[in-house]
Amino acid sequence: MANSLRVRGILETSVYVDDLDRAHAFYGDILGLERMVSGDRLSAYDAAPGETLLVFLRGATSQDVPTSGGLVPGHHSEGPSHFAFKVAKADLNAWRAHFAQAGVSIVSEVTWPAGGVSLYVNDPDGNVVEFAAPALWPNYRE
Amino acid sequence: MANSLRVRGILETSVYVDDLDRAHAFYGDILGLERMVSGDRLSAYDAAPGETLLVFLRGATSQDVPTSGGLVPGHHSEGPSHFAFKVAKADLNAWRAHFAQAGVSIVSEVTWPAGGVSLYVNDPDGNVVEFAAPALWPNYRE
Repeated sequence: MANSLRVRGILETSVYVDDLDRAHAFYGDILGLERMVSGDRLSAYDAAPGETLLVFLRGATSQDVPTSGGLVPGHHSEGPSHFAFKVAKADLNAWRAHFAQAGVSIVSEVTWPAGGVSLYVNDPDGNVVEFAAPALWPNYRE
Repeated sequence: MANSLRVRGILETSVYVDDLDRAHAFYGDILGLERMVSGDRLSAYDAAPGETLLVFLRGATSQDVPTSGGLVPGHHSEGPSHFAFKVAKADLNAWRAHFAQAGVSIVSEVTWPAGGVSLYVNDPDGNVVEFAAPALWPNYRE
């Protein structure tokens, strides 16, 4: 591979849910993510510049979708999957208070060997959503 | 929610596979991602600064994992899920050539209304991996 040929990061992270409105109460209302697109089979949220969270309606995405620009391949997922947001370490207490006020239980807290802290909560479909303050991975330091 | 309380983007994106070595031939060897952590139940790849791709061994992540710093909640997923890497528009032809040379079929190409182009390939487990050049979402422009 040519040395210059590298991906530039991750654009889309997916989570699958059984009810888009119920999911929006979490991702939109509680987390405050802006919903850029609201459709029958997905909601697309702005997680950061160039970072999109796709919330897919489970069972509605298995078929390929023809568009004027080409065929969007189908995909699907069963089970509570996992992804993680980045949060600032200085905001951890504010997140704890915010979740408490919103009635969202923190199911676990982990302090990592590198010094970071993660709060784990479940979205309304039981997906395992982590809020991770650095330092954690070698590419995620303070 | 206090106006200042915002996630800072997505740290971890997950994909589930049945064989970590076979997955590494794709994510490590063909895509050139650096594997930061190699374990029995996951590989962690550096997708970009502060962006980690977690490749989980399906069936090995369902149980909570006790650590000295706290309990890491279990999760799992069945089925070919979806996520997307960012690529530069100027690199699209190089990616097409690279996939051809590596024996990876491009299962679809999509030109988006905003002008971006996505190449879709399957990883060895059939996960739908997109390589997306801008412009696509409102937060992903050139």
